Amino acid sequence: MINFILCIHIHQPVGNFDFVVEDAYKNAYLPFLQALSKYPRIKLSLHTSGYLLEWLNENHKEYLDLLWQMIEKGQVEMMGAGYYEPVLAVIPKRDRIGQIKLMSDKLDEYFGVRPKGIWLTERVWEPHLPESLNAAGVEYVVVDDYHFVKAGFKKEDLSGYYITEEQGHVLKVFPGSERLRYVIPFEPIEKFIEHLKNIESSLQRSSVRLPLAVFADDGEKFGVWPGTHKWVYKEGWLERFLETLNHNLEWIKPVTFSEYLKDNEPSGRVYLPTTSYMEMGEWALPAEASLEYTNLIQDVKKWHDSERIKRFLQGGMWRNFMAKYSEANWMHKRMLLVSKEAEKSENPAAINCLYKSQANDAYWHGVFGGLYLPHLRSSVYENLIKAENLIEDVKNQPPIAISEQDFDADTHNEILIKTPKFNVFLRPHSGGGIQELDFKPIAYNLTNCLARRYEGYHHRVKTQGNGGAGEGTKSIHDTVVSKEQGLEKSLVYDNYERLSLIDRFIKPGAPLSPLSVDDLQTGRFEEGGDFVGALYKHEFRNQNSELVLTRNGIVFGKPVRIEKKIYFTDDSLLRIDYQLANLDASPLHTLFCSEWNILLGFGLKARDMGSMEEFELEEDWLGLKFRMKLNPCANLYTYPIDTVSFSESGFERNFQGLCILPCWEINLAPGNACKIELSIDAASLV
Amino acid sequence: MINFILCIHIHQPVGNFDFVVEDAYKNAYLPFLQALSKYPRIKLSLHTSGYLLEWLNENHKEYLDLLWQMIEKGQVEMMGAGYYEPVLAVIPKRDRIGQIKLMSDKLDEYFGVRPKGIWLTERVWEPHLPESLNAAGVEYVVVDDYHFVKAGFKKEDLSGYYITEEQGHVLKVFPGSERLRYVIPFEPIEKFIEHLKNIESSLQRSSVRLPLAVFADDGEKFGVWPGTHKWVYKEGWLERFLETLNHNLEWIKPVTFSEYLKDNEPSGRVYLPTTSYMEMGEWALPAEASLEYTNLIQDVKKWHDSERIKRFLQGGMWRNFMAKYSEANWMHKRMLLVSKEAEKSENPAAINCLYKSQANDAYWHGVFGGLYLPHLRSSVYENLIKAENLIEDVKNQPPIAISEQDFDADTHNEILIKTPKFNVFLRPHSGGGIQELDFKPIAYNLTNCLARRYEGYHHRVKTQGNGGAGEGTKSIHDTVVSKEQGLEKSLVYDNYERLSLIDRFIKPGAPLSPLSVDDLQTGRFEEGGDFVGALYKHEFRNQNSELVLTRNGIVFGKPVRIEKKIYFTDDSLLRIDYQLANLDASPLHTLFCSEWNILLGFGLKARDMGSMEEFELEEDWLGLKFRMKLNPCANLYTYPIDTVSFSESGFERNFQGLCILPCWEINLAPGNACKIELSIDAASLV
Repeated sequence: MINFILCIHIHQPVGNFDFVVEDAYKNAYLPFLQALSKYPRIKLSLHTSGYLLEWLNENHKEYLDLLWQMIEKGQVEMMGAGYYEPVLAVIPKRDRIGQIKLMSDKLDEYFGVRPKGIWLTERVWEPHLPESLNAAGVEYVVVDDYHFVKAGFKKEDLSGYYITEEQGHVLKVFPGSERLRYVIPFEPIEKFIEHLKNIESSLQRSSVRLPLAVFADDGEKFGVWPGTHKWVYKEGWLERFLETLNHNLEWIKPVTFSEYLKDNEPSGRVYLPTTSYMEMGEWALPAEASLEYTNLIQDVKKWHDSERIKRFLQGGMWRNFMAKYSEANWMHKRMLLVSKEAEKSENPAAINCLYKSQANDAYWHGVFGGLYLPHLRSSVYENLIKAENLIEDVKNQPPIAISEQDFDADTHNEILIKTPKFNVFLRPHSGGGIQELDFKPIAYNLTNCLARRYEGYHHRVKTQGNGGAGEGTKSIHDTVVSKEQGLEKSLVYDNYERLSLIDRFIKPGAPLSPLSVDDLQTGRFEEGGDFVGALYKHEFRNQNSELVLTRNGIVFGKPVRIEKKIYFTDDSLLRIDYQLANLDASPLHTLFCSEWNILLGFGLKARDMGSMEEFELEEDWLGLKFRMKLNPCANLYTYPIDTVSFSESGFERNFQGLCILPCWEINLAPGNACKIELSIDAASLV
Repeated sequence: MINFILCIHIHQPVGNFDFVVEDAYKNAYLPFLQALSKYPRIKLSLHTSGYLLEWLNENHKEYLDLLWQMIEKGQVEMMGAGYYEPVLAVIPKRDRIGQIKLMSDKLDEYFGVRPKGIWLTERVWEPHLPESLNAAGVEYVVVDDYHFVKAGFKKEDLSGYYITEEQGHVLKVFPGSERLRYVIPFEPIEKFIEHLKNIESSLQRSSVRLPLAVFADDGEKFGVWPGTHKWVYKEGWLERFLETLNHNLEWIKPVTFSEYLKDNEPSGRVYLPTTSYMEMGEWALPAEASLEYTNLIQDVKKWHDSERIKRFLQGGMWRNFMAKYSEANWMHKRMLLVSKEAEKSENPAAINCLYKSQANDAYWHGVFGGLYLPHLRSSVYENLIKAENLIEDVKNQPPIAISEQDFDADTHNEILIKTPKFNVFLRPHSGGGIQELDFKPIAYNLTNCLARRYEGYHHRVKTQGNGGAGEGTKSIHDTVVSKEQGLEKSLVYDNYERLSLIDRFIKPGAPLSPLSVDDLQTGRFEEGGDFVGALYKHEFRNQNSELVLTRNGIVFGKPVRIEKKIYFTDDSLLRIDYQLANLDASPLHTLFCSEWNILLGFGLKARDMGSMEEFELEEDWLGLKFRMKLNPCANLYTYPIDTVSFSESGFERNFQGLCILPCWEINLAPGNACKIELSIDAASLV
């Protein structure tokens, strides 16, 4: 006799496209539940993330009705989690508790049940979690057996559940089977039966517990992942699986987590290290290490004492995404800022927006696009800015408020200029650039751009051909194709952060003259200044309504001083007044550029636009008009910033923003200075 | 040019023998400081743990005077830490902050300086630490480069310090060189110079930071570890090292941590996983895994792509000691209980005792005895009981108070019976045994016994010969000898927890008759009951002044009921009234034993003491008399519980307590019952 827990987690990111969710519903969520409902003795432990639950409630009540019936019959146990699928370890404790309670409340509202356990988002475990999980009323959690192996257990010795605790706050932890994650639904049913037979026969009988096998994984594997709909439903994998299970009920007893807990004592005590599932360990490492680790894992599998080594191999931890991608760190720290404001405000609508902004998807990148998907990042900023708008009482705001703080925890202060229309976050220590420029009326971060980075898997873009979706029986981890040809041409890497208001001096003249937009796009130009990423001094002037950034640097060997005064005009334009001074005893002749990276202009090609005094972008889908005015007029170049990244359906190119590069030819006699004015405006389209 | 930080941590466990500390002082602490003081340009960052600092103040003011002069001159930077060297990650947040602040206050009091950074006790890192470290005013911490490697860095790319944070609370982290930990003081000075040259030449120059090499390690390596006094001082290693350094000051610039921070920007951002130094990862794993991991590490070193694999190998985390040793878990949870009481009381003396009880040494075991040293465990209990005595106002306590709570976070409630003289903690779910029996007048836990466990290194006890101390130049990690011959005979393992009041039924008659104390000691007897470790029902009787534990079990195939009533007599003896009932339809003839494991009677041999009605132990050094009365009289066996464990000077045997085993022959007709009375007393010797 063996207990079997079938646990499914279904989830859609906050801000995902509606048609994507609808597809997932039709191809996976609905057919899975319908199939299962025909086998009432096969129990399911189910987690539906909050955003998806609400979407189902709005779009497919019939799904919730069916679910409700299955819950009533005792076939389904609902599990909780952080409501919008945050990585629990990295959000503030009060939000951790708040999001879990919100999920419990919603389940109570929808189905009249309060969950006892939670689905641990992305299985990101940290040892201090039990304390806040306890405070949120969580009794159990499910992770991978991989977590236990990293704590020194052997997979074959695992069974049932274990006790862990933090400061005496107890949590029961189930190890989910990694083997079953690969078997279900990708291998023949016999492999499943075989695995359960092995567990049943190998584990020592105990009077206080029955052997247990736990499958706990994403429900998207049953129909959303490439090829799986055909395999799971049309080719009958799921039907065969359920039918087989139903025929083996005399020795396989499907139970829910709570049913198992009621009848069985814990198997022991465990302290799990900072880890997630095995693959997350590959993704979270820095690019070089990620490649090395992935290769090593592949190689070790072929060695004769593979298990002996694999057991002790470990990759990176989730938090490292914040070191790997400064954009993720910035988003995370922005979220912490709003969390503090939301806590003070006690405004429920703002807190709900805050919770939405904590959805994990946009903060990292593995086999799904994640951070590389601009619409997911935009959704984070949208919710953060909406939360602030709700808290701030925009109508009664002062025309301008400047504050200074180390917002992103890098030991340097950033500057925040707030107006009723804009938030501007500036980094004096990073070239005096703009980190974030929010247009508050539509809650949009205009500078939400991602730098082009080397990824450990990029060499495979060159070696893999393009093609259709993978074969049905392959796990997503094995399937890599390119979604378009020639992707390798987009493998260009930035050696700087894609802020805005970056001050460049580019060499005009041979061999780079005339400046080609292609060279700019691919970074093949000579930077003659030392201002990019460097430390600017800052001061506030004119009764704290203006920020002035200054730096003395070197341009092609000559001392040059940049001053940029940043303020808002009476008609609420963002204005930058540059003053460039030649501090040298010889004339200065060079090209000065102010680089802006704006998440607008999807579909635009690289262009040398010639001399312009104004540049405008209209985005109908956003309802936004963006305008940059240049005085004197500048030679303007624009090019799309494209990245190449993994997605579940293969390598793909993503537009991360438009680089707008106004360039001015500078001719300065010794000791002379010149002025350049830039103004930025955004307006809602009605 | 390269910066060099020399950082030394010196420490003695709370409760260590005075002569041991004195030896360490003479052989290491004093000569090291004296030698260094002759080279004023060679800076030192020093951490002295609180207990040692106080000891020095009481016993060797001249050391503190010299230190004070060196601080005044700017040669020494004092570092903070948790005052009594707790593992910060596992003590309550308020104590973490309290202990660090206490250290800062003491340094201020002694030397007029407040530390900016801390020595991280046992380098046990967990990612949630920065928040409370910030609250305690900590700006920086030093860990091993190993921690960074586990976060995906390559050792050769490391330099300077890094930013980490939790919820935006920033902490600066220095990676200490593992290589230097082996070079200093064990290898020729040339290796040191070579290492620094390598770093200096390989690291990319940066305008915002100088290359840095950090040596951060235990000061006991300079004279306390076997052979090191001779090597470091008599054979002149330290003098050569300082002299060489002093001759290379044109390119090696010794600085303190704070000096480096003042002049250098951070090298990047990092999120370190739950880890400590490399060796801790071996020790913290379960025994089987520990052996496998240690062997793997040894083997991998010989492979040609060694570095490629080693980089991603990881052992266990510190918390796992609480899963590996239930005694460590119990101590830790007892500490949490007292911490709550101490917090409520706000009694500074009690809080100081609590802090002392948190000293890490007794809670784990690696290359030092640690948990295996009874005097260190006794010191923990002494401080816990003293804290409670201070809080409780013993004189006005009720004669008896019984409470029920899951004290040790195992999901089962334990029972605490408190009298003015005793604390008794009972475990109904573990055979109804006594976990802890405190004699409060001298703050002594009588049942502080450690079970005999398999350790991953035990096979080496058999293969290694015994001998003197290791050779001077060997690191402690390579040195293993046995401190006495025949240790392998003590390799006996218990399959149960060494509680007291354990109910056994042992088969009398051939081949085990007469019961031999040697067989009892080595576990070669047939246990006929199923009561050991099993779940007893419990209820409180007689106005909550008596605890009654009952269980129906099986003895050699026959149903038997045990009832044990536990209470205190008017003359404050702990009394256990057993009632054994034969529930079978046939007669029961067996041997019943009540097993007690008491940390008294050091030096006593295994003995069959024959029939006794009273057993007494007097411990002059403790000032304690212990008495057990038996009614009817019993055949009494006693044997020492000896363990074999690693210590810094080799494998050693340690007395963990005396097993006292009164046995009664039971003859019960069907349906009949018999009574056995046991009373326990302890008294202070005046």
